[in-house]
Amino acid sequence: MKKGGFTLPGEAGYEKLTLELCEKWGADCIRDSDGTVLSDEILSSGIPIYSTICLVRSINGWAKENPDKLQRCFLSSDPKHATGNTLEIDPLEKYFRPQMTIWRGDDKKKLWEVWDRTSGEQIDKEKWSWDEERGVVTINETIPYHFYTVSFMATRVWEEISMYNHITNDWGDRERLLAVEPRYPEAQEALLSYLDEWCRSHPATKVVRFTSLFYNFTWIWGADERHRSMYTDWGSYDFAVNPPALDEFEAEYSYRLTAEDFINMGRRNPTHNPPTKHYRDWMEFTGKFVRAFGKKCIDIVHSYGKLAYMFYDDTWIGTEPWSGYYGEFGFDGLIKCVFNAFEARLCAGVKEVKTHELRLHPYLFPTGLGGEPTFAPGGHPERDAKRFWACVRRALLRVKIDRIGLGGYLSLTESFPEFRDEIEHIADEFRTLRDLHENDSPWSTEIHVAVLHSWGSLRTWNCAGHMHEHPELPLNHIYEALAGQPFEVSAISFEDVEKNGVPEDVDVIINAGREGDAWSGGDAWKSAALKAAICEFVARGGGIIGVSEPSALRCGGRHFRLADIFGVDREVGATICHEKYKYERKPHFITAEMTEEQRRGVRFHNHTPGVYALSGDADIILSDEATGDIIMSAREFEAGRAVYMSGFTYSSEDARLLYRSLLYAAGREELESSYMAKSPYVECAYFPKSGTLVAINSSKVDVATEIKTPNGSIPVNVSGEGTVILKLS
Amino acid sequence: MKKGGFTLPGEAGYEKLTLELCEKWGADCIRDSDGTVLSDEILSSGIPIYSTICLVRSINGWAKENPDKLQRCFLSSDPKHATGNTLEIDPLEKYFRPQMTIWRGDDKKKLWEVWDRTSGEQIDKEKWSWDEERGVVTINETIPYHFYTVSFMATRVWEEISMYNHITNDWGDRERLLAVEPRYPEAQEALLSYLDEWCRSHPATKVVRFTSLFYNFTWIWGADERHRSMYTDWGSYDFAVNPPALDEFEAEYSYRLTAEDFINMGRRNPTHNPPTKHYRDWMEFTGKFVRAFGKKCIDIVHSYGKLAYMFYDDTWIGTEPWSGYYGEFGFDGLIKCVFNAFEARLCAGVKEVKTHELRLHPYLFPTGLGGEPTFAPGGHPERDAKRFWACVRRALLRVKIDRIGLGGYLSLTESFPEFRDEIEHIADEFRTLRDLHENDSPWSTEIHVAVLHSWGSLRTWNCAGHMHEHPELPLNHIYEALAGQPFEVSAISFEDVEKNGVPEDVDVIINAGREGDAWSGGDAWKSAALKAAICEFVARGGGIIGVSEPSALRCGGRHFRLADIFGVDREVGATICHEKYKYERKPHFITAEMTEEQRRGVRFHNHTPGVYALSGDADIILSDEATGDIIMSAREFEAGRAVYMSGFTYSSEDARLLYRSLLYAAGREELESSYMAKSPYVECAYFPKSGTLVAINSSKVDVATEIKTPNGSIPVNVSGEGTVILKLS
Repeated sequence: MKKGGFTLPGEAGYEKLTLELCEKWGADCIRDSDGTVLSDEILSSGIPIYSTICLVRSINGWAKENPDKLQRCFLSSDPKHATGNTLEIDPLEKYFRPQMTIWRGDDKKKLWEVWDRTSGEQIDKEKWSWDEERGVVTINETIPYHFYTVSFMATRVWEEISMYNHITNDWGDRERLLAVEPRYPEAQEALLSYLDEWCRSHPATKVVRFTSLFYNFTWIWGADERHRSMYTDWGSYDFAVNPPALDEFEAEYSYRLTAEDFINMGRRNPTHNPPTKHYRDWMEFTGKFVRAFGKKCIDIVHSYGKLAYMFYDDTWIGTEPWSGYYGEFGFDGLIKCVFNAFEARLCAGVKEVKTHELRLHPYLFPTGLGGEPTFAPGGHPERDAKRFWACVRRALLRVKIDRIGLGGYLSLTESFPEFRDEIEHIADEFRTLRDLHENDSPWSTEIHVAVLHSWGSLRTWNCAGHMHEHPELPLNHIYEALAGQPFEVSAISFEDVEKNGVPEDVDVIINAGREGDAWSGGDAWKSAALKAAICEFVARGGGIIGVSEPSALRCGGRHFRLADIFGVDREVGATICHEKYKYERKPHFITAEMTEEQRRGVRFHNHTPGVYALSGDADIILSDEATGDIIMSAREFEAGRAVYMSGFTYSSEDARLLYRSLLYAAGREELESSYMAKSPYVECAYFPKSGTLVAINSSKVDVATEIKTPNGSIPVNVSGEGTVILKLS
Repeated sequence: MKKGGFTLPGEAGYEKLTLELCEKWGADCIRDSDGTVLSDEILSSGIPIYSTICLVRSINGWAKENPDKLQRCFLSSDPKHATGNTLEIDPLEKYFRPQMTIWRGDDKKKLWEVWDRTSGEQIDKEKWSWDEERGVVTINETIPYHFYTVSFMATRVWEEISMYNHITNDWGDRERLLAVEPRYPEAQEALLSYLDEWCRSHPATKVVRFTSLFYNFTWIWGADERHRSMYTDWGSYDFAVNPPALDEFEAEYSYRLTAEDFINMGRRNPTHNPPTKHYRDWMEFTGKFVRAFGKKCIDIVHSYGKLAYMFYDDTWIGTEPWSGYYGEFGFDGLIKCVFNAFEARLCAGVKEVKTHELRLHPYLFPTGLGGEPTFAPGGHPERDAKRFWACVRRALLRVKIDRIGLGGYLSLTESFPEFRDEIEHIADEFRTLRDLHENDSPWSTEIHVAVLHSWGSLRTWNCAGHMHEHPELPLNHIYEALAGQPFEVSAISFEDVEKNGVPEDVDVIINAGREGDAWSGGDAWKSAALKAAICEFVARGGGIIGVSEPSALRCGGRHFRLADIFGVDREVGATICHEKYKYERKPHFITAEMTEEQRRGVRFHNHTPGVYALSGDADIILSDEATGDIIMSAREFEAGRAVYMSGFTYSSEDARLLYRSLLYAAGREELESSYMAKSPYVECAYFPKSGTLVAINSSKVDVATEIKTPNGSIPVNVSGEGTVILKLS
């Protein structure tokens, strides 16, 4: 068996185990983990060392001495109604004070805002005052029975990951870490100096893994124990806000961002909503700063002959590997912690780095994310590892990943020999798959699928975050299905299409979201140019797949702006006097493989109710007999084709529905004979140069099936979660 | 037993049966039905005769001679896309040509419009032309891949009730009736002359029942058999449109209504959507005409010493018994066909007529509305009659109805002796209930409940139409529950409240609808004055009950504009990064009578998913454990109270939930001891002057329960669908 491509978490005090597992799993790197320090024995073993560093929380002494240079964010009080002509509001009332404070040095009248949320108007600055001693804003001349809010700038006095770990693990009086704001030149100097010293003092470290660079995902906590975590978004740029940034922004963009740009009537700016122009400017502005200062940090690492990798999890803010500017950092590698196949694609697709590494689950912790036992009595980490691997592996059939690895406490594996064997097996399988990609590419349908949403390429292969955070989003599931399928996938934005039309090389567009969200598009659909471009694309032979509420916008007439292309629309209460066409369900290529019972059984967990046929133009393929709701329809529109799905849940069966929908939409039904197994549980990749056919079974049950190839069917038996590799030539 | 208050449908050829049943059921009136002619024997029996008349379709000879003076309406073609710079559209393509035609005499450029529905702009009149021979509109200078529609004025060449009956009953070459347009003076003259002659020639007729006066509910049919009925709304004023009406409107209102005022991007103007100002003007304008010409007709009837009644079903258009102007007609009576209790309240509440009569179901037809057998083998009309009566009877406890009656073919009862007995029983029970209202009023909580929606008093006790047409509307079910409960019910409009605040005498407001509809309110909620008025009302001690999506509007921030009063809001996808408060379900007065199993079992068929608690301020009373959705919550807001329900389905159990919610919202919990049965199946009315307590059982099962009164509990046994009458003093 080959070795290498594996990063092992080392553990001091378990040097023997570390080196043993290094051998067993073929590890060629040892990393430290949060809270672990590698011993000299490991450091001097000659095996290259990975070290993690979280810069902004690394200089806590400096941070404590400079409380005016900590990271900040805008917050808003909850709406409170006046009963008379004056109202007092404690801005911090609902927030977790160990995280958020008010900095007395701020120019409140410059930074803060008071809003009448009933009228939607901002209150004149002269009409409110801040009482530093009592911690309240007094608003004068209020209108009785209107609701008011105070938007204010808080200082974050506890770095959120430190806060979470500290509280979760009950760390008592262990030091609380602060996040310094790198916009301040003094902070930059302190950080660079720290990094330089760190590199100098860690000669054994070959790879510096940056955990933070420089802003956490937004995570706002509440005072109420039942509402501790109040707001989280991997993609929100809220924690990069601070007074010098706002001033620099104003100088550069010739307008000033105010609290309301971030508070946004209380909704803030989650990635799942279409962004405003101001917010996009803010992201661009922050990105430029993060790249410029990030490069200085990476240059230091390189100056010591070390490599710089980025951990693609906690801090996307400003780093944005899919921005097109990622190369400016000069990173050597990208490490992604993965639960799902789409996350492996998210990592692998970043071309600006040489090394792509996956951190597999389960982590070597006693319990999993949901609190269930992992490396603890009752746990079966070997089963977990196998399941996670079976999920992620689908992507590795399609793209090359260079390395895998684990995180956590190696000592925990001592009581779980089956886990150690399973990882050995996974590491070997990983290396086998990786090597197939060397000088070869798996067969592809060559159908180019473009996911159309508000963010375009910036949010290719993800909707910001993990599947388990927003399992309700159909696009998360669509990405997961696509991650293991032989299509060429990109993401395009409404703005791109509005300006330049659908790119020439696109075969099928997918628009999958809920009314008003960034994935469906919201107000973007007001654009006649966008609608006409899509209509032209389909009429001239393109395919479109709409999921849930594609192109939905409440502006009169149809609910879906593309309803007349799909041939279906959704009843949201505005057209209940319009009686609906009485459709009949029809057989179709997309569901041709399924039994009638299977067809009747299809239910998406995020099904959108109330979708109906406008006329007989659309073929209704799947429907809910109890409600009459359409679940799936297909339609020829001039030379092109339009498919509608009322939702989407990733499963082997539904992934197959999507696969066949894409073939149909692209007008390439004949490709169903190419490297497709009869069973949806089995997926294939054919590597033409080596003549190798890989078949993986993503289900837990053994499957006997046959794989259709251009030269006929090949029978295969694939064990549950297993792999079969055949040489065809 | 008393007699009277009963209208019997007579049938020629069955004179003996007619007179027998007259005696058995205590009938004091005999009516003709559509398609029946009474014989001389009946006419000369001395029993007063009701005759039906449908004026606008009564002068078919004249109508055929005046094809330019038939009734009209605006229609629109379906959106069709251009692929080049010219496009042809057949406006009638999707319509049922036996109903709709294009009148060649029309000034097309004045009446018609062509719209680019992709850009939302109307096309210059010079850019399109109408080809009379080919029946197509040619649009020039189209933008490729934009969708276009043609709005046009159709002439209706088959009166819709005639059309429906003719086609349903397969009447072959029987004459098709046309509806004349009474706006034309020549038509008015012909109609009045016909009516005068009719009155003269029907000396036995004591009551003239007007079926139509003068415009049908809107009913647009399609060419496709699978889409025959395309649009129906009892409350839409579309069929009153015609060239002279548009000209007269322009002269009176100083602006001209155009096709788009009616087509409204294809949505038209169903009663369930908030109306535009133009549409309200159109309704007012039409109402003035209908009342003025209607009065002329009624004057003729009166001049012959006859009474004029209106049938409150097919033609509300312009008659509007709840408009406040209904008295101008001079009608003597109002007849309502009823399936539900709220329809009895709809009839009884019209104070401008002396006589209120209900037409009970089942009609004496072989089959019911859904095609199930009634007076046919397999039918049990006696059971149907009992069930309908049990539904409607709840209202008769609260208000006085003067008469009941049946419709259809009396001969069909010959094989159903149990039905004849059941009607005898119902007629007696009706007269008993009616007489209790003489000089007495049932005890009431005196709590004034105001239903707040777009239409205000015009749509008191109904959302336009029957329950079975729109069972999805929570307000239909709320009205049905209220119809049998001891509250004072009115309806108020957003405009009323915005201008004048909540009326002084209102105790509890109900806002029950779906986002954007007329019952929830849509854009009305943009008004700060409206929101502040509601806030003040509740803060000062008022109650509010929100159902489904009260005050919902997509304009940023909260989804419910009153979320901060209810303490709950709905997640529609825009705030998914805002994590939700972890509520605990709490015991509450509203559900105090229920077992824990009953509480867990509450599900509204029109449940609104995704409602969550904003904080701990609201008490969560009922929830869906699987999804975490809130089903019911309650909150004290200053001196007042706010209750939220995720939907509402009328049933005895849910009606009780509403009853207790109203007591709670009004702060009158002590009234639970007043004339309330322990079992929700039993409802009571106490008539204080006669000391009579009536208890009815609306369920099919026998119930043993006790009724709480201010003087203690009284045990009662009420048989399934039965009644118990007790003298308390």
